[in-house]
Amino acid sequence: MHPLNTELYKIEKHERGEPILRALSIQNQPIRVLREGDKMCGTTDQNPNPATPNKTPSANGNGTTRSSVSPDTVLNLEQGDPTMFEPYWKKMGDKGTMVISGSQWMSYVSDFTNICFFMEPEFEGAVRRLHRTVGNAVVDGRHIVVGTGSTQLYQAALYALTSPGGAEPISVVSAAPYYSSYPDETDYLRSGLYRWAGDAYAFDKKGHGDYIEVVNTPNNPDGTNRKAVVKHRPDDQVQGKLIHDLAYYWPQYTAITAPLDEDIMYFTFSKSTGHAGSRIGWAIVKDKEIAKKMAKFVELSTLGVSKVSQHRAAKLMEVICDGYQNCKAKNCELFFEHCQNLMAQRWERLREVVERSEIFSLPKYPKEYCLFSGEFNEPHPAFAWLKCKEDIDLEKFIRGCIKVQGRTGRKFGSDQKYLRLSMLSKDEVFDQFLERLSTIKAISNGY
Amino acid sequence: MHPLNTELYKIEKHERGEPILRALSIQNQPIRVLREGDKMCGTTDQNPNPATPNKTPSANGNGTTRSSVSPDTVLNLEQGDPTMFEPYWKKMGDKGTMVISGSQWMSYVSDFTNICFFMEPEFEGAVRRLHRTVGNAVVDGRHIVVGTGSTQLYQAALYALTSPGGAEPISVVSAAPYYSSYPDETDYLRSGLYRWAGDAYAFDKKGHGDYIEVVNTPNNPDGTNRKAVVKHRPDDQVQGKLIHDLAYYWPQYTAITAPLDEDIMYFTFSKSTGHAGSRIGWAIVKDKEIAKKMAKFVELSTLGVSKVSQHRAAKLMEVICDGYQNCKAKNCELFFEHCQNLMAQRWERLREVVERSEIFSLPKYPKEYCLFSGEFNEPHPAFAWLKCKEDIDLEKFIRGCIKVQGRTGRKFGSDQKYLRLSMLSKDEVFDQFLERLSTIKAISNGY
Repeated sequence: MHPLNTELYKIEKHERGEPILRALSIQNQPIRVLREGDKMCGTTDQNPNPATPNKTPSANGNGTTRSSVSPDTVLNLEQGDPTMFEPYWKKMGDKGTMVISGSQWMSYVSDFTNICFFMEPEFEGAVRRLHRTVGNAVVDGRHIVVGTGSTQLYQAALYALTSPGGAEPISVVSAAPYYSSYPDETDYLRSGLYRWAGDAYAFDKKGHGDYIEVVNTPNNPDGTNRKAVVKHRPDDQVQGKLIHDLAYYWPQYTAITAPLDEDIMYFTFSKSTGHAGSRIGWAIVKDKEIAKKMAKFVELSTLGVSKVSQHRAAKLMEVICDGYQNCKAKNCELFFEHCQNLMAQRWERLREVVERSEIFSLPKYPKEYCLFSGEFNEPHPAFAWLKCKEDIDLEKFIRGCIKVQGRTGRKFGSDQKYLRLSMLSKDEVFDQFLERLSTIKAISNGY
Repeated sequence: MHPLNTELYKIEKHERGEPILRALSIQNQPIRVLREGDKMCGTTDQNPNPATPNKTPSANGNGTTRSSVSPDTVLNLEQGDPTMFEPYWKKMGDKGTMVISGSQWMSYVSDFTNICFFMEPEFEGAVRRLHRTVGNAVVDGRHIVVGTGSTQLYQAALYALTSPGGAEPISVVSAAPYYSSYPDETDYLRSGLYRWAGDAYAFDKKGHGDYIEVVNTPNNPDGTNRKAVVKHRPDDQVQGKLIHDLAYYWPQYTAITAPLDEDIMYFTFSKSTGHAGSRIGWAIVKDKEIAKKMAKFVELSTLGVSKVSQHRAAKLMEVICDGYQNCKAKNCELFFEHCQNLMAQRWERLREVVERSEIFSLPKYPKEYCLFSGEFNEPHPAFAWLKCKEDIDLEKFIRGCIKVQGRTGRKFGSDQKYLRLSMLSKDEVFDQFLERLSTIKAISNGY
């Protein structure tokens, strides 16, 4: 039984008019407030915040995270650490195992004839094969650039699309709610080449000249399918450039409706197979000069990308593709079908809990025909974009109330009544999360 | 027999007064000029230039580079790819081998209680043990920050030592000849936080306010031991901050004269053990807040560092340290002694060839007492800083004359009559290099 309950919170108006949560008590004990040293269990994503005043258990000897979740453990669903895919890879056993000798891959160089001199040919081959297997992106005649995760490739794309000598930095925009890391990743070095300019819907391009729009589809945090917003205005005079962040365009999250063929698209090993700790991403780029500039960025930033990680990514992509090649029958333990089922089950259970509450809601997504599965599929995003019917600070409320750490909508250029919660945690964390969420039926001490 | 000879070149004065090389012929054949598609064999380093119009053979199935060196192959000694250490690790056999399962190290997170939430505890432990074994840096009470090679840590240090809001970017300087990548790595994003300001000797700090000085010791390219230059002027009014780049402060390159204990020191896996392709570096930092800012930079830049690479680095560092722990006798195949011997042999052979020439010279280095080996040792830098007695473009001359690609002194803030050549290539490349260099006795068609 979970010891926390919303009825023990009172929501009052602050003197400045903002609602505040006032803790009452639990079974006549003062409510324990989250503080440094509290146990924390869960996940991280593309922007883990180490400043979060909590602890997660560290990895154990097997490199997998410990799984004890007690009722007083804070559940970290703030980031999108894809640890839910771990059991699949465990089940694959030796198929996913690799052996590295001490003398392998010592050189900086993979192939000087490639645009990316630090990209291992095996990695490039596996990336092309994976996209051909899934059908989510055009790779024929396109250039591949490997990066240290998609975080680095986002910055490489900004570098490639800008040039020194402009009167002022080029504006970078994305439609709100946008991925909460874009602003920081754009502005932390105060680059003279580019600067974050916020919500693409609110962007007045006439006052700014050229711009770059990041299209994140399916979108983090709200799971919607996206198209460019600024570029397609009927009065468009200014030339905008597009970056497509396709981290979540995989069958476990959404229907594959077409092989995308945009100028700059990037993907990540973290969200496709679940191997975030390997820091591998890749971009698919139409223009050779842009691809060269992106590779130059990676060279200047980190002098290439871990070859061990590249070979591991290649190996595991090949395991997935071999599965599809060797096993045409359904019900096989194929990666994307397996993960799609897991995501569907989690979403079904979450929707049940949310529908029983009187105060929360989730976005509805239309079914679409998936070319990969040959079926009409509903999207099952990597994050739940939870909305509260009352205008409260939902992050604070959920953390105080059921010890679940999400990320406030404010960080996505949206509203405090929205909360982003990871759907990719380990089973036991997700189970606990649902159990705790189901204790919140209504806000009893309301407005 | 090598088909090229300096006597087939004529050095003439250009009409603007600059000397030019005019190719004559080889055995009545026109001299073959380096062009795209030429075979190239050799090394790369912390700044490989993929724009170099040459090819290197790509890695073979074992992840080790092919070793065929024919007389018409261009020898790439431009970068410092540490492939000479490969045979040692081959000899270590199973000791250096690691097995990775498909389900290991999937999370972004290693330990949220660490300043570096993405640093594996095994990696941190191995780094501390290695420095205690070698005695080249103080680690007790110091913070460790892992990076994607030292390239990333240099930039992390600049970020940590600056802050937004200054009237103008802080000047970054290093004494010439300085590492040729510093200018580009400092300026490629046109940061408003910092900018490259060139040779520390020529820096007028009074006109600039605060500054950062990078001290690279032993220095790349010239192998000298360095101390800060600007900071120690007697009229010093302005507060300078120091970054110590200690990539080459290991026993195979130089005498370990003291455990260094500077504010920010960084090292790299590439130059210590020779595993450049793993992209691992680490900083040792005194101040906790600076260490936190450096970790924040790595988070914003690449969202952490490959865990597979961290574990590989830890494993191989442990192999080295176990060697010292288990084997006190001399003549054991201990890593640093083995590599020190190799470097000493190469330097002896190179000095012989250079001394026989009438036009080249190399720096002389004083012997110093090495605390690690307990002997007086002469430095054996990772690069030869070759000087020509004539004021010619030595890079162009050596490339045209014996098909050896070095890097001109101009790129290090120095002179065209200097040329930096890697000493870390594979044996067969180094042998060929010496053979070809020995054909140049003098410039016969001179001034």
